[in-house]
Amino acid sequence: MFRWLKQFLIGSPLETAALHEQRLSKKAGLAVLASDNLSSTAYAAEEILLALTAGVAAGMLVPLHYSVPIAGAIVLLTVLVAVSYGQTMYAYPTGGGAYTVAKENLGVTAALAGAAALLLDYILTVAVSVAAGVAAITSAIPNWYSHRVLLCALAVMAILLANLRGVRESAAVFAGPVYLFIVSAFVLIGGGLLRYFQGAVPPPAPPPGHEAWSFAFVFLLLRAFASGCVALTGVEAVANGVRIFRPPVSRNAAVTLYCMAALLATMFLGTSVLAYLYGVVPREGETVLSQLGRTIFGTGPIYYVIQAATMAILILAANTSFADFPRLASLVAQDRFLPRQLANLGDKLVYSNGMIFLALVATGLLVFFQGDVHNLIPLYMVGVFLAITLSQAGMVVHWWRSSEGGTVWRLAVNALGAFATGVVMVVVAVVKFRQGAWLVVVALAALMLLFRKIRDHYFVATRELSLADYEKPAELRHTAVVPVAGMNKMVLGAIEYARSISKDVIAVTVNVDNLDREELLEKWQAWAPDVPLVILESPYRAIHRPLLTFIDELEGWRDDDVITVVIPEFITKRWWHHLLHNQTSLFLKAALLFKPKIVVTSVPHHMRK
Amino acid sequence: MFRWLKQFLIGSPLETAALHEQRLSKKAGLAVLASDNLSSTAYAAEEILLALTAGVAAGMLVPLHYSVPIAGAIVLLTVLVAVSYGQTMYAYPTGGGAYTVAKENLGVTAALAGAAALLLDYILTVAVSVAAGVAAITSAIPNWYSHRVLLCALAVMAILLANLRGVRESAAVFAGPVYLFIVSAFVLIGGGLLRYFQGAVPPPAPPPGHEAWSFAFVFLLLRAFASGCVALTGVEAVANGVRIFRPPVSRNAAVTLYCMAALLATMFLGTSVLAYLYGVVPREGETVLSQLGRTIFGTGPIYYVIQAATMAILILAANTSFADFPRLASLVAQDRFLPRQLANLGDKLVYSNGMIFLALVATGLLVFFQGDVHNLIPLYMVGVFLAITLSQAGMVVHWWRSSEGGTVWRLAVNALGAFATGVVMVVVAVVKFRQGAWLVVVALAALMLLFRKIRDHYFVATRELSLADYEKPAELRHTAVVPVAGMNKMVLGAIEYARSISKDVIAVTVNVDNLDREELLEKWQAWAPDVPLVILESPYRAIHRPLLTFIDELEGWRDDDVITVVIPEFITKRWWHHLLHNQTSLFLKAALLFKPKIVVTSVPHHMRK
Repeated sequence: MFRWLKQFLIGSPLETAALHEQRLSKKAGLAVLASDNLSSTAYAAEEILLALTAGVAAGMLVPLHYSVPIAGAIVLLTVLVAVSYGQTMYAYPTGGGAYTVAKENLGVTAALAGAAALLLDYILTVAVSVAAGVAAITSAIPNWYSHRVLLCALAVMAILLANLRGVRESAAVFAGPVYLFIVSAFVLIGGGLLRYFQGAVPPPAPPPGHEAWSFAFVFLLLRAFASGCVALTGVEAVANGVRIFRPPVSRNAAVTLYCMAALLATMFLGTSVLAYLYGVVPREGETVLSQLGRTIFGTGPIYYVIQAATMAILILAANTSFADFPRLASLVAQDRFLPRQLANLGDKLVYSNGMIFLALVATGLLVFFQGDVHNLIPLYMVGVFLAITLSQAGMVVHWWRSSEGGTVWRLAVNALGAFATGVVMVVVAVVKFRQGAWLVVVALAALMLLFRKIRDHYFVATRELSLADYEKPAELRHTAVVPVAGMNKMVLGAIEYARSISKDVIAVTVNVDNLDREELLEKWQAWAPDVPLVILESPYRAIHRPLLTFIDELEGWRDDDVITVVIPEFITKRWWHHLLHNQTSLFLKAALLFKPKIVVTSVPHHMRK
Repeated sequence: MFRWLKQFLIGSPLETAALHEQRLSKKAGLAVLASDNLSSTAYAAEEILLALTAGVAAGMLVPLHYSVPIAGAIVLLTVLVAVSYGQTMYAYPTGGGAYTVAKENLGVTAALAGAAALLLDYILTVAVSVAAGVAAITSAIPNWYSHRVLLCALAVMAILLANLRGVRESAAVFAGPVYLFIVSAFVLIGGGLLRYFQGAVPPPAPPPGHEAWSFAFVFLLLRAFASGCVALTGVEAVANGVRIFRPPVSRNAAVTLYCMAALLATMFLGTSVLAYLYGVVPREGETVLSQLGRTIFGTGPIYYVIQAATMAILILAANTSFADFPRLASLVAQDRFLPRQLANLGDKLVYSNGMIFLALVATGLLVFFQGDVHNLIPLYMVGVFLAITLSQAGMVVHWWRSSEGGTVWRLAVNALGAFATGVVMVVVAVVKFRQGAWLVVVALAALMLLFRKIRDHYFVATRELSLADYEKPAELRHTAVVPVAGMNKMVLGAIEYARSISKDVIAVTVNVDNLDREELLEKWQAWAPDVPLVILESPYRAIHRPLLTFIDELEGWRDDDVITVVIPEFITKRWWHHLLHNQTSLFLKAALLFKPKIVVTSVPHHMRK
C-alpha cells in the first residue's frame, strides 16, 4: 500500500548506471537553473519602490523616479558578477559553487561560511519565490488573498513531489512556464512602451527636486539599492549546477549564464522604467507588475496570462533550490560536515532527504512570515552576497596560484567582482540589520558551528572504529540471561536457543503481583530443570528496574566478556493483536542497548494464526 | 526529568501490600460514588422542561407543570431501583455491577452487553457532567460561555490528574464539594419555598388545560419522562463499587445507597416544584438552576456559592467514572475480553491505563458536541437502563437458583425492578432513537464484537503457547549471518561475537554505490580471513531488500533450525549524534522480527565520547 503510493507519487527507481544520462541541454538547463534569477524581476523593482515610498511616508522629499538609476546600477553589478562567474565555470567544470571554490582556495572556514550562506539562500529562495508567486495570483483573484499561507504550503508540496520524480522530468515540466514568462515580460514591456509613446498616459511630472544630501537620505537610497539587489539572487545557480549540462559542459553553462544575465538586465530595467512612466506605486494586496498589466492591457486575457506566467515562474524558481540545495548538501555531507544520510542518492538519483528537509523549513518560514515577500527579503540578502563574494575571492586566489598564461586579466575581473559584491554585502548587512539581517548573521554562525561539531563527531567515530590498535581477544566467555514471565512454549524456545549459544544460562522473572510461586517452580522443574530460575521481588510493580539492576549485578559477579540477554518475543499475525500484549520486551531492548557489554537477542515466537 | 515530573504530578508509588488499606468510610464512599447520581439534579429537571417546551414550540398545548408529576414518577422508579440494588449488595459483597451479576446468572453474551453498556455510560458520565458543570459556571460568568469547550477539556485533565494520585486522596479532595452541594440544594429549595409562601412571587396561573390525548402528545410526554430519567444515572455506581467500603462492606454500601436515593428524590422533586412555582423555563446560556438561584437570592454571595457548589459536584461526578471505569475494565480484562494491560495495577493501585483512555475519549466527545449537555443526553440513556435492567434480571435468576429461605420476596422486588427499567429502556431507545440513541445501539454491538475478538485472540495465543504438544528438539543448529558495511572495530566485534555462538559465520555486505571492492577484500583478508564475505549487488541502491532476499535463500540452502542475524550497532554518547548515522540497523531489525526462524542479535559498539 505504502510502496504503491510511493511508486505513484514518485515514480520507479532508477539504476545507478542511468545517472550519467541525466544531463540537460542549454535550453533545458536555463529552465531549471535560471528561473530563480529571472523571476526576481517580479518583485525587485517593487522592493526598490517600497524602500523609496517608506522615505516619502516618513516625510522626506524622495523622487520615486530614482528607482530607474538605482535599477541601472544593479544591472551593472549583475553584468560584472556574470562575467566573473563565467570564468569560474571554465576553471571548475564539475561545479564551482562558493563552497567548492572557497574550499580549494580560501580554506575550510571560508568554505563553511559559503556553504552556510548558500544553504540559507536556497531555503529563502523557496520561501520568497513561493510567496511572490502566490502574490501574483492573489493580485488577480483578490478573494484568495486571505488563504495565501495555505496556497504557499500547497505550492511547496507540489514542487517537492515534482522534484522527487527526478531532474530530467523536472526540466520537462518547467521549461514551458519559464519561456512563457520571458515572452510575457517582453510583451508587457513592449506593449507598455508602445502605449506610452502613443500617448495613452500623460508623461510623468518633471522631478520635483529632492531632499538635501543628509545621512538619512543617503541611508534611504542605499536601502533602496540594497532592496533591489535581490535581483542578483540566483546568479550563482548556474555555476553551482554546471555539471547537469551536456558536454561541452563549461561552454554550455557559460552561454546559459550570459543569456540569463542579458534577459534579467532587460526585464528588470524595463519594468522599473514602466513603473516610472505609468506612475505605479506599491500597495497592499496587488503587486506592481499586476498594476502595470491591468493599466496597459485592461483586466482581460493578456493580463491573466501575464499573471499566470509570473506565478508559474516564481513557483518554479523555488525549483532551482530543489535542484541545488540537495546537491550542495551532498557535497558538504561527503566532506562529513553534514549527516552522511544527505550524501546518499535517493531512489530517483536525486537527493530525497535534503529535498524533504528544504520543503519543511521553507514551509515553516512561509507560515511564520504569513507568506509576505517583503518581510522575507531582509533575511535573504546577506547570505546571497556572502556566497557571491566568497566565490569570487576564491577565484582571485585561484588565478594567483595558477601557472597558466593570461591570468592577470582574469584575476582583475574576479577581484573587481569580489570587491563590488563585498561592499554590497556590508551595505546590505548594515542597512537591513534591524529588519532581519541580524537573524541571518546569527544563523550563519550557528550553522558553521554545527558543521564543525558534526565533522568532529565523525572524526572521533572513525578513530574509535579504527583497527590500528585492535587486539584479537581470546575466545569470548558469556552468560545468557533469559527474562521470562512464566513457562510456556515461547519461553522454552528462548531457553533452548540460549542453551545453544552458551553453557551458562540463567532465567529470571519479576514477581510484580501475587505470582503463584509453587506453580511456576513445578512447571520449571518439569520443563527446564537444568536452568536456574531467579525470582526478583518487585513491591512497587516495576518490571524493568529490577531486571536492569540484576543484570548490572551479574556483571560484577561474573568474569564474562559479555552478557547476552535472550528476550522471548511474541509476534502476532495481525497488527492490532500486537496491542493486546504488553510491550515489555520493546522497552527492555531499548534500555539494554545503552548498557555496555550487553548483547541483546530477540527470539521470536510467531503465532500461526 | 520525566520521572521527576511524574513523581510531582502523580505522587510516589504504593506497595502492593498497601492495597487493602485503601478502603473508605460511608461518608467518604458517598462522596466518591454518589456524586454522579446526586449531581444529575443539576440538569434532570431542566431536561424535562426542555422536552415539554419543544412541544410548545411545535404549537402544541402542553402545560409545563406536568414536569412535577413526571419527576414524581421518576422518583418512584429511583426508589424501586435503589431497593432492588440494595439486595444485590448483600448477594455480591465484592462488587455486583451489571457485568458480574449478568456473567454469573445470565451468561456471557448478557455480561458483555452489560459491560459494553457500563463502559459507554462511564465515558458519557464524564462528558455530560463536565459539560453541565461548565454550564453552571458560564451561567454565572457569561463572558466565559464562548470558551466552554476549552474549560471542559481543562476540567477533564484536572480530574484525571487527581485520580492518578489514588483513591483515598480522591475522597479527601472530593468530600467537601459533595456535601457543600447537598447543603446548597437544600438551602435553595428551603429558601425558595419560604419566599414563595411569603408571597414574593404571584402563584402560577391555573393550568390552561392540555392537548387532546393524541399519539404525538403521548410521545411528547414519554420523551419528557425519558429525558428526566437521566436522574437515575449513577444509581449503579455504589453497587459496582461495593468493595471500596470498609467492613461490614455490604451494610455500609447499602446504607450509603439508600441515603443517596433519599437525597436524590428530595432534591430532584424540590427543584422541579420550584421551577413550576417560579415559572422558570430553559433558555440558552443560563441553566434553570442558575435562574432559580438568581430569582430567589439575587445575584449575590449565596447565588455564587450555589453555582460554585453545582459546578464542583458536577465536575466531581465525572470522578465516579474515573473510579469505576478502570475497575470494570480491569474485571473485563481479567476475563480476557479487553487488553490485558488494563488488568494491571498502575503505580498508585488504581488503573492508570483505563483512566487515561477514559479522559481522552470523553474529551473527544466534549469537543465534538461543543460541550452541550442537551446534545449528549440522548447518547447517555440507553446504556444506563440496559445496565440496570441486566443487573436486576440477573438477580432474579440468582434468587431463583438460590437455596436460601425467604427469596421469593427478594425475587419479586428484583423482577419488578427489572421489568420497570426494561420498559423504560425500550421507551428511551424509541423516543430518542433519531436524536442519537441509534449511535449507542451501534456502539454497543461493535463493542460486544470487539470483546469477542479479543478473547478469541487470547484463547488462540494460550493454546499456541501451551506445552501440551511440546517436543524437546535435538541441539539447535544455526548459522550466524553478520551484515556489514565495511571492516572496522565495530564489525570485528560483531564477528567475534558471532564466532562465539556458532561455528558457521557468514558476513554479507551490499554494494549500493561504487564500493571499493579491492580495498574491502584486502582488509577482510587481514582481519577475518576465516569468515566468508558475500557481496550483494544492488543496482537500485536498496539495502534491506537484497539482505532479506539473501537470508531467505540461505534458509533454503541450509538445514538449520534457526539463522541468527548478528547486527553491529553503533551507540553514540549524545542523542543528536545518533542522527548522524544511518538507521539501517533499526529498519533491518524491524523487518527481520516478522520472519520465522530468524533470531536477531544486536552487538552494540559504544562510543567512548
